[in-house]
Amino acid sequence: MEKIAVFPGSFDPITVGHQSIINRAVNIFDKIIVAVGDNSEKENFFSIEQRLKWIELVFANEDRVSVSRYSGLTVDFCKKVNARFILRGLRTSADFEFERSIGQVNKQIYPEIETVFLLTTPEHTPINSSIVRDILKHGGDASMFVPPEVEF
Amino acid sequence: MEKIAVFPGSFDPITVGHQSIINRAVNIFDKIIVAVGDNSEKENFFSIEQRLKWIELVFANEDRVSVSRYSGLTVDFCKKVNARFILRGLRTSADFEFERSIGQVNKQIYPEIETVFLLTTPEHTPINSSIVRDILKHGGDASMFVPPEVEF
Amino acid sequence: MEKIAVFPGSFDPITVGHQSIINRAVNIFDKIIVAVGDNSEKENFFSIEQRLKWIELVFANEDRVSVSRYSGLTVDFCKKVNARFILRGLRTSADFEFERSIGQVNKQIYPEIETVFLLTTPEHTPINSSIVRDILKHGGDASMFVPPEVEF
Amino acid sequence: MEKIAVFPGSFDPITVGHQSIINRAVNIFDKIIVAVGDNSEKENFFSIEQRLKWIELVFANEDRVSVSRYSGLTVDFCKKVNARFILRGLRTSADFEFERSIGQVNKQIYPEIETVFLLTTPEHTPINSSIVRDILKHGGDASMFVPPEVEF
Amino acid sequence: MEKIAVFPGSFDPITVGHQSIINRAVNIFDKIIVAVGDNSEKENFFSIEQRLKWIELVFANEDRVSVSRYSGLTVDFCKKVNARFILRGLRTSADFEFERSIGQVNKQIYPEIETVFLLTTPEHTPINSSIVRDILKHGGDASMFVPPEVEF
Amino acid sequence: MEKIAVFPGSFDPITVGHQSIINRAVNIFDKIIVAVGDNSEKENFFSIEQRLKWIELVFANEDRVSVSRYSGLTVDFCKKVNARFILRGLRTSADFEFERSIGQVNKQIYPEIETVFLLTTPEHTPINSSIVRDILKHGGDASMFVPPEVEF
Repeated sequence: MEKIAVFPGSFDPITVGHQSIINRAVNIFDKIIVAVGDNSEKENFFSIEQRLKWIELVFANEDRVSVSRYSGLTVDFCKKVNARFILRGLRTSADFEFERSIGQVNKQIYPEIETVFLLTTPEHTPINSSIVRDILKHGGDASMFVPPEVEF
Repeated sequence: MEKIAVFPGSFDPITVGHQSIINRAVNIFDKIIVAVGDNSEKENFFSIEQRLKWIELVFANEDRVSVSRYSGLTVDFCKKVNARFILRGLRTSADFEFERSIGQVNKQIYPEIETVFLLTTPEHTPINSSIVRDILKHGGDASMFVPPEVEF
Repeated sequence: MEKIAVFPGSFDPITVGHQSIINRAVNIFDKIIVAVGDNSEKENFFSIEQRLKWIELVFANEDRVSVSRYSGLTVDFCKKVNARFILRGLRTSADFEFERSIGQVNKQIYPEIETVFLLTTPEHTPINSSIVRDILKHGGDASMFVPPEVEF
Repeated sequence: MEKIAVFPGSFDPITVGHQSIINRAVNIFDKIIVAVGDNSEKENFFSIEQRLKWIELVFANEDRVSVSRYSGLTVDFCKKVNARFILRGLRTSADFEFERSIGQVNKQIYPEIETVFLLTTPEHTPINSSIVRDILKHGGDASMFVPPEVEF
Repeated sequence: MEKIAVFPGSFDPITVGHQSIINRAVNIFDKIIVAVGDNSEKENFFSIEQRLKWIELVFANEDRVSVSRYSGLTVDFCKKVNARFILRGLRTSADFEFERSIGQVNKQIYPEIETVFLLTTPEHTPINSSIVRDILKHGGDASMFVPPEVEF
Repeated sequence: MEKIAVFPGSFDPITVGHQSIINRAVNIFDKIIVAVGDNSEKENFFSIEQRLKWIELVFANEDRVSVSRYSGLTVDFCKKVNARFILRGLRTSADFEFERSIGQVNKQIYPEIETVFLLTTPEHTPINSSIVRDILKHGGDASMFVPPEVEF
């Protein structure tokens, strides 16, 4: 059975941290679907189209990685695309506490879906999309925190 | 002197975690008042009337538990109802850091009021009202995380 | 039914933090048994006799507090003395993680025994017996961190 | 070279915790600039003018402390005022995780700027501006958590 | 290329938590080697022979799981057995902080080896080998925390 | 008044993390004394002479940094050498909880001594002396985690 993992998130925008997690995870799974949440009620900084396009550009040469938009529960999307795994990166213990709740609740809803975690590398640990947006809002240069394909 | 405890919260909605804490706390206190914050500026998912009604249904057969709505400071409500104790459940260390600040500040305002903590059971640790609301927003089934009296 | 709580620990030595927790807990329980672990394999700084004597002195005028030594599991001691509650103080989130494991395991062994937590006051948060011993080992003055009845 | 530190924040309002950090930091630096973020998109409780005025009153007799408003990135403000140091207080491990991300990202943007941390004193650990605002919103008395110069 | 994961530890003794992690991980990897550290300087509760035997019994019917003893660095053992993955379970944020350091250091030594984390289930979160040993030392019954094949 | 900071520790051995903290701290203080604890009861991996010698070699060309051995309380050593500051690096939130207790207790003993914290850089966050010793004990190569002057 093919091992498909969903890597869900807002990716608002994708960071070098996300990129590194995905690049390492292709050694574990047969296929990774980067699933961009299309959450109408949440206000995003970049449009869903822009966020999807950047991810496509970043993984243009990586056949095992595809990009999808989804709404609804992440576990429902997993079932729809036959993914038995959810992939997440862990940066800090605050991250961990949050991810543990989500992961354990997801498992209670669909016990056959497993969340698999990789560590961010030390140099990516302080970086997340929220800090990137904050730098942009204040007129700073955030290019060192995103893949070169992401141009603001 | 009667030992009255206030269990304050939004209960938006009440979860199996809340229920378990209250059911265990009736062995400690003579009376528990579940106090639902009526916070006009905070947007709630369920109306205050709905939230109160569910709690009443859940504890319909438990004389030692009553339900009240309140606004203003929790410690002021405690004084009004002659409660010397605030009851809180602890799930995670993130919870703990938050509760410690509130509890220590409350004690500084009214030294005679004591906050008493019980642990959630392991299986309830990942569950809170925010996750329940999130499941509902995304069209999922959250019934396993709330008491049977809560029907969405 | 009388509400008896066991406050277990090494108390090597008792600190102002322990004292404050006990003094506040007498408002919750009918009786508090300070239970000093007599753990032959663990090396203690002060003898079990010395540790017991200090606690007796500190609570000499408090009828609701008694002192006992015990070995074996804390929950077994609770059953023996008809205590349905274990009392613990919480200082930090590191404390919390540790206490949560112990508390949840204890509940799994004897579901009828409940662990009840109080917060240390802010000024006692940095203090524990281990820091007191460390000060003493290095020839410092630790008297401000222990009750006046504890004389080194 | 003069050692200038920027102490950035919303100060909505300044608390006794902020005051204590600044009063202790004047022994480390030659000059401290309390930098109040003028963030048009973030809704504040007190106006920027009010927040600035309170800080000026609190440090009216301390020549080494001045007050400024700024917008944009904190590190850009530091460069503008020739500050090589950012001063921050640490209360809890939740604080720490947040501050570490910001501090490490700031250092990556401008490696010559160093963030320096002081601990809050134990009695100030539970207090922050958000809790002060919460007390005020609920009609409580928050005067014990702010310097006497702050009158609501 | 075969996906081999090493699950390293002391397993002093193996718990239901370890068992659950391994049973779920066989869906991710082709082969899992439970690697029991033979650390002469660390004093263990059960002999290395006993610890190995229990694990063999627990996974006697699972072809994809084997058991080995090893000494030296875990990453050196991984290289020796052609494992590109280290498998670890995460229970608490204290666990996480510890595992992150080890995982990031391992990756710095051998960048081609990836540590993969699964969450313990909520009911196993409070359990670890150290608590099991503690129960045994105090004469308690720890059988509910270990697989049935482990008989004390 | 000269600003003297003591950087206390076991330095068993000094790591690239320690080195980085000291190199950045010379911009804050006039003089930094690396104070190596000579704790007869604690068993060290490297002799006090070896540990001192390595630190001297690492800072041979930095006039503002000197090395001392000391026993007794760190705050007593500070008073003896007229240091008003204790310098510490912060890596993780586990570190932070530990350092906060020590720092707040030190301040209670000698209010005039201030502990000042710097963040480790992201790439040094996973590294500490204990991990270096662990690598060495298991026959690994730890040279990338220590300054080049440290030769095992």
